[in-house]
Amino acid sequence: MVTSRWTATPARTASPRRRGAVLERAILDAALEQLSTVGWSGLTMEGVATGAQTGKAAVYRRWPSKEDLVADALRAGLPRFEAAPDHGSVREDLLDLCRQVREAMFSRSGFALRSVIHECDSLQAERFHGVIFKGVVEPTIKLLQEVITRGIERGEVRTDAANGYVFDAVPAMMMYRSKMCASEWSDHELEEMIDQLMVPLLRPTGM
Amino acid sequence: MVTSRWTATPARTASPRRRGAVLERAILDAALEQLSTVGWSGLTMEGVATGAQTGKAAVYRRWPSKEDLVADALRAGLPRFEAAPDHGSVREDLLDLCRQVREAMFSRSGFALRSVIHECDSLQAERFHGVIFKGVVEPTIKLLQEVITRGIERGEVRTDAANGYVFDAVPAMMMYRSKMCASEWSDHELEEMIDQLMVPLLRPTGM
Repeated sequence: MVTSRWTATPARTASPRRRGAVLERAILDAALEQLSTVGWSGLTMEGVATGAQTGKAAVYRRWPSKEDLVADALRAGLPRFEAAPDHGSVREDLLDLCRQVREAMFSRSGFALRSVIHECDSLQAERFHGVIFKGVVEPTIKLLQEVITRGIERGEVRTDAANGYVFDAVPAMMMYRSKMCASEWSDHELEEMIDQLMVPLLRPTGM
Repeated sequence: MVTSRWTATPARTASPRRRGAVLERAILDAALEQLSTVGWSGLTMEGVATGAQTGKAAVYRRWPSKEDLVADALRAGLPRFEAAPDHGSVREDLLDLCRQVREAMFSRSGFALRSVIHECDSLQAERFHGVIFKGVVEPTIKLLQEVITRGIERGEVRTDAANGYVFDAVPAMMMYRSKMCASEWSDHELEEMIDQLMVPLLRPTGM
């Protein structure tokens, strides 16, 4: 009896159908890749699907709009912030933290975020500013709070230093100099900022 | 003898032909007006000429490109910074200075600058970031230097406070909170920033 090809056990295909997290990761990576090559205006859901070697439906099923997809891709592409550094001194902890902020700002996602914000319209830009806030600023401030609280406990930091304006100083300075002076925040520059701005700002009076 | 109309003394016209600074001012105002209504993309040299009740040639003669015209219009429209405030205390001087920065940021020119930077392409945006730098940041830092130097002389400010990172803190914080938190820098917020960030940053140790 001739066995119909269609009833035989399906042969293993060269590219097994991916599911779940693996497929999502591939789609998000493809979106970041598209952003780096053709930018926000050039990116299409079809192009991303092709780049991820999947179909348009797989993309739309998870991300109803280009904006949703790009926001997730940018967020997922940012480096994770590690637990609050603890090197024994506030100065060293701040340096570690600022290096992590630098890594995020100058990651592929960081660069892509800045271009997208420039390319898209004002309403969409708000969404992407939100990605900066959730993905970079919030984690930074959370870690800063821990570093400063520990410094207060150690007597290295004045007791009234744990306020929003002090916390904001780090992301504010890093974004400002990056934009206004095209600073890339070398280790030397980070140390200067910490020694000339943050340490004097934080130390207890009488020291 | 019939006197030809053409040889009689020219009658005074309703709109005398303007020259020099007066005409330039009218053109720059018209450009700012266009920016507020139709934005960077909608602004045309012809539209500006019409708004200034003059001809295209008068505009092109002085400003070869749309970019040149808009950069000058934005710069000219920013409020002038007054001489360094001297109210007897660094805290009051800083408050005065920060109010002036706020006036500039939230002037018609300030708003227009932010929209234009968002609307135009990356290369043009550099030019307009330059307008922010020359028209707002540089005057701010110059005044800050004077306020801080006077503070050092009075013993209100530590002797090593006169550095670029300390100076940058003011424009950095004001731009950051404006963008990230949509802050409009009320007097209350300005005072909080000065009391919780700038004063601790500047005061001598042992105070």
